[in-house]
Amino acid sequence: MKTKLRDHIAEIVSFSDQEFEYIIAHFHYKKMKKNQFLIQVGQQKVNKYFVLSGILKSYYVDKSDKEHIIQFAQPDWWITDYNAFFNNKEATINVDCITDCELLYISNEDLEKLSAEFHKMEHFFRVKSNAGYVASQERILTMLNLTSVERFNHFNRLYPNLIQSIPKYLIASYIGVSREMLSRLSKM
Amino acid sequence: MKTKLRDHIAEIVSFSDQEFEYIIAHFHYKKMKKNQFLIQVGQQKVNKYFVLSGILKSYYVDKSDKEHIIQFAQPDWWITDYNAFFNNKEATINVDCITDCELLYISNEDLEKLSAEFHKMEHFFRVKSNAGYVASQERILTMLNLTSVERFNHFNRLYPNLIQSIPKYLIASYIGVSREMLSRLSKM
Repeated sequence: MKTKLRDHIAEIVSFSDQEFEYIIAHFHYKKMKKNQFLIQVGQQKVNKYFVLSGILKSYYVDKSDKEHIIQFAQPDWWITDYNAFFNNKEATINVDCITDCELLYISNEDLEKLSAEFHKMEHFFRVKSNAGYVASQERILTMLNLTSVERFNHFNRLYPNLIQSIPKYLIASYIGVSREMLSRLSKM
Repeated sequence: MKTKLRDHIAEIVSFSDQEFEYIIAHFHYKKMKKNQFLIQVGQQKVNKYFVLSGILKSYYVDKSDKEHIIQFAQPDWWITDYNAFFNNKEATINVDCITDCELLYISNEDLEKLSAEFHKMEHFFRVKSNAGYVASQERILTMLNLTSVERFNHFNRLYPNLIQSIPKYLIASYIGVSREMLSRLSKM
């Protein structure tokens, strides 16, 4: 499990064995069952999770109990309530496991500590934030601009493996179409 | 104009006069007239702009020539095509001036150079990326979850000064309602 995080970080910056041992000591391991939650609305302290195995979702539940999917996460991705995490606020969204999951997590204090201690870690986390920012802006564009058919095709192209492993009603919620519409799109 | 950027950076990290002189030398000044463009679809090299004065918009034009507003920017904000900028790709959106504007801009190479040379600059830009990421995720949530009345009130609360200075049809495009609906909302 350490190797997975090391390989992931090494795509951007490299560390000696000794440095990496120090860095990994700030991460903690968590094993979760399908449907268990990682973060719940109102939670005071939120960690950032690196996915070793499994699939997760972050989502908002509106007044009429409707779920709005913000993000999925699969192995090698990160997930959290970014507003709560970066700004030390209480969680306003939920994160839970769609399948059994294995994760490594880090607190905001430890992420800031590592970023201050290692310029390379600050660089790594900046690159990750940039990528998250770009992906969010892309999602805004697809929501503003694409028809439901185009959004479905876009999702298919971007995440071919997620289509296989996520219940259809969650994909429908993510791309913003009804379940009936999604099942028609899936057959096209 | 240098003071404005220095104050902005100093909210997060501090530099000696000598360090700041070196840093500011990587930024360039640009003065623009209302309606002039900064970035156009297809452009090969994209800079990142810090707003000294004026208001700008980034937007996407769809096949039927409809404008979809991605972001506004006002003094002390940054604006660019983030995907093009961070990934050295050609621009897929436009950025132009809603009013006369004064800007400082930096190339991606110089931003990476400063981030590599000064751990503190890497930190500054990471904090800015985090804030952009959080704001994008918030916008996704408002698009998924809020009614048009709620989106209008949310925009009003978040950007009271923009409501005064931006043509109504642009605000309508940003929050995703018709101009007629917006003028009804404005009178409520």
